[in-house]
Amino acid sequence: MDLFYHPPGSDYVLSEDEAHHARVLRLVIGDCIALVDGRGKRMEAELTSDKKEFRFTITKEEVVPPAPYHIQVAVAPTKNLDRMEWLVEKCTELGVQQISFMRCNRSERKTVNLDRLGKIAQSAMKQSQQAWLPELNGMTGFDEILLAKADQRFIGYVDPHNPVHLKSVIKPGASYLMLIGPEGDFSPDEIATALQSNFSQVSLGPTRLRTETAALVACTLLQSANASTQ
Amino acid sequence: MDLFYHPPGSDYVLSEDEAHHARVLRLVIGDCIALVDGRGKRMEAELTSDKKEFRFTITKEEVVPPAPYHIQVAVAPTKNLDRMEWLVEKCTELGVQQISFMRCNRSERKTVNLDRLGKIAQSAMKQSQQAWLPELNGMTGFDEILLAKADQRFIGYVDPHNPVHLKSVIKPGASYLMLIGPEGDFSPDEIATALQSNFSQVSLGPTRLRTETAALVACTLLQSANASTQ
Repeated sequence: MDLFYHPPGSDYVLSEDEAHHARVLRLVIGDCIALVDGRGKRMEAELTSDKKEFRFTITKEEVVPPAPYHIQVAVAPTKNLDRMEWLVEKCTELGVQQISFMRCNRSERKTVNLDRLGKIAQSAMKQSQQAWLPELNGMTGFDEILLAKADQRFIGYVDPHNPVHLKSVIKPGASYLMLIGPEGDFSPDEIATALQSNFSQVSLGPTRLRTETAALVACTLLQSANASTQ
Repeated sequence: MDLFYHPPGSDYVLSEDEAHHARVLRLVIGDCIALVDGRGKRMEAELTSDKKEFRFTITKEEVVPPAPYHIQVAVAPTKNLDRMEWLVEKCTELGVQQISFMRCNRSERKTVNLDRLGKIAQSAMKQSQQAWLPELNGMTGFDEILLAKADQRFIGYVDPHNPVHLKSVIKPGASYLMLIGPEGDFSPDEIATALQSNFSQVSLGPTRLRTETAALVACTLLQSANASTQ
């Protein structure tokens, strides 16, 4: 059954985008649909109107509990926005809880389009059959990001001294904040400030990764460290 | 110093694409360039001609040894080719050794453009400052892929019985073959045949991942299991 997105607190009417999807599927009164609200609620509903708007009544509800861990990745957006849209899609598939866009000294891009990124997250959530959307935070200054709380706070950057690999320091069941810098990497000042603020420097492997690749590799390692092995 | 790609066995002349790059950089006779051959060789060279072609003489050579493990991912190409181009770029950044495109019962796409994918791998290799290119194999039948040798052979697919997670069975320093199915997943016949051929079924985590995401998550886990922790 196709999944529809129905944000919390809204009337029992499909949004414009979802109504279009319903028309493509040729849904009519009496058809059953499945919905998620992006906050853990899965619903089944029956269409009660299919004319200029699609109304429905809920026939079943269940709540998917939040994950017992919390991954926040704070990334300096790349010059090429496609790479950030791609990252949001992939992080959503992985079930990452929070994606923050960070303004760094060497950032080439100062803005992101949260509406568009939100729609990409919605469709990735539906496509991967999940009930939770990641929280997306618009451009936030590096210093403000450093104030965010987490059990484990990591900064990943290119370093000839080859620091400890992220995989070897993840404590399962914790909250994580992972900082990934811009294409020109963090500035020495930013790195010094992060280390003074008790961020742990971690390596993401032997190869030099693009910003969005580094962010996804970090999220993959954090998520898989929390996945049950059986 | 910008990296140029210079395949083994070719004359000491930059290819069309690389010559264009050299012109953009306004390189002239006497300038030094760095080259990689995609087979582990790094070279420094001096330009001896900058007219209708860029000739050079090698001034320094070093060999980067191959990794002590071998990752082969065999993936059924997605309908949308961008997703495969993206996968080739990301696998190259990670240092994956071999990417094979697989024809499955439910494959929507029967062809890939190896020339284009090869160029994407070349630029990703240069961008990530590596000396090795992944081997790219064009469309290969599922049954033929099953004959490929590796110390550990895995098949990942959607399964309600939640099999063992890949992360918990990787033996470092081995050769790996990871099968990732098409958007419609492997057929029951294909799964049965793979299991009879001693492939191990593995999970890539709790969420349903797109084909290209599953392939990259698997390669990330295989690569990081082989990364030194310090």
